[in-house]
Amino acid sequence: MDTVYVVKVGGGVIDEEPALQDFLAAFAGIQGAKLLVHGGGRRASELARQMDIPQQMYHGRRVTDAATLELITMVYAGSINKSIVAGLQALHCNAIGLSGADGNLLPAVRRPVKDGLDFGYVGDILPGADTSLLQMMLDTGRTPVLAPLTHDGKGQLLNINADSIAQELAKALSAKYTVKLVYTFEQNGVLLDTRDKDSVIPVMGKAYYKQLLEEGNIYEGMIPKLDNAFAAVDAGVETVIIGNAGRLSQMIKGQSGTIIHI
Amino acid sequence: MDTVYVVKVGGGVIDEEPALQDFLAAFAGIQGAKLLVHGGGRRASELARQMDIPQQMYHGRRVTDAATLELITMVYAGSINKSIVAGLQALHCNAIGLSGADGNLLPAVRRPVKDGLDFGYVGDILPGADTSLLQMMLDTGRTPVLAPLTHDGKGQLLNINADSIAQELAKALSAKYTVKLVYTFEQNGVLLDTRDKDSVIPVMGKAYYKQLLEEGNIYEGMIPKLDNAFAAVDAGVETVIIGNAGRLSQMIKGQSGTIIHI
Repeated sequence: MDTVYVVKVGGGVIDEEPALQDFLAAFAGIQGAKLLVHGGGRRASELARQMDIPQQMYHGRRVTDAATLELITMVYAGSINKSIVAGLQALHCNAIGLSGADGNLLPAVRRPVKDGLDFGYVGDILPGADTSLLQMMLDTGRTPVLAPLTHDGKGQLLNINADSIAQELAKALSAKYTVKLVYTFEQNGVLLDTRDKDSVIPVMGKAYYKQLLEEGNIYEGMIPKLDNAFAAVDAGVETVIIGNAGRLSQMIKGQSGTIIHI
Repeated sequence: MDTVYVVKVGGGVIDEEPALQDFLAAFAGIQGAKLLVHGGGRRASELARQMDIPQQMYHGRRVTDAATLELITMVYAGSINKSIVAGLQALHCNAIGLSGADGNLLPAVRRPVKDGLDFGYVGDILPGADTSLLQMMLDTGRTPVLAPLTHDGKGQLLNINADSIAQELAKALSAKYTVKLVYTFEQNGVLLDTRDKDSVIPVMGKAYYKQLLEEGNIYEGMIPKLDNAFAAVDAGVETVIIGNAGRLSQMIKGQSGTIIHI
């Protein structure tokens, strides 16, 4: 099976023009089939202030009313997505910007109100991602670039988490490809000691993860990310690589970050 | 050769939710391969006011400085494009939203400053539209939806006219398909008497157009549109149909609008 890299990049990199350019150059340099999922960044919050749209966050998630949905659709699927596409095209990477609504790629349902908490137009991805459009692109040397939005199939756009998109697409593509799922963030990888940024665990299997958990040696904020990573490898993703967005080229070569496998 | 409908819809319809829904239903009802090119609408101007970005128009064209480019990228490629995609998906039309930058579909160059007039980030489309991505989509029952933006291949997004996109794509696709190019606007077609909205000329060949021009019987504002239409049929487009966005279904059946052929 051919290899596909599914790479997720977050807001921190998107907000910094030189960092974004370096990242895009490293991404464009990945040989073979690849796909980029991007997050939001600060621009949506800045615009919300300019447009007087009050923003409400709950556990780091944006509560998405109708005005906020329009705003993030503009920023995520509009300016961020198309700037990344134009940037990659300039690097001769044949990028195509998409959301989960395009080609009905990622069916979702609006998150139900729970314990009185209504996230608004936030979606939860349903099973049944249709990756045929992505396959057509990947198999012809094209590079999909995904914005964190999808739809409910009834005409409603929905805000979704970029990590979840990367995870679902990686799992769905595993039926046809050897998938390497790359999560980039501001750390150099999974750290043994959060006070020491160089204490990266280079390789982590399930048994070792379990041991670290039992010893209380995993930073709490990493646990959901790692649970998701192991769920991905359980679902057929070959490896998950977690590391610093500024070291993407090294991560691809196995020289930086944490490699997670079964 | 298979038939492809290249349909252009303008701002007037996009601004009115019920009109847009009716239009999308009629568009989704077109049998066979089809592609939609949409314009802008009032939302960009509203947002410019909200965000205090002064807007300058010149002969109906928006002068596009950097702030305006970000704004229209957000509105055209973000909220309008993705709302149309979600609306078509709800009608079981497998829509995929794109700009001319995606897949390097429409190479363009920034319009040169002429007579001291600088349109800013406005593009002129270059020859060499790469329709291979569109063909892959059309041949697999998918429906591209184009926002009026493209790029210069060096990382710069550019504002382009939706009529020009429709025209260039129709011409390029004529090499592989029988192309019917449909321009929708607020009139019922090309009128013989601009004071009589029912005086639609049902069919117009080049000889008749020339005769009407010589007689001074063509409304001046229609001349560039008609010149473009005849340029399209000269370049291989089978027919151009010009008519009312509210009558798309009838136009497709030949029961409304003006049909232009060689």
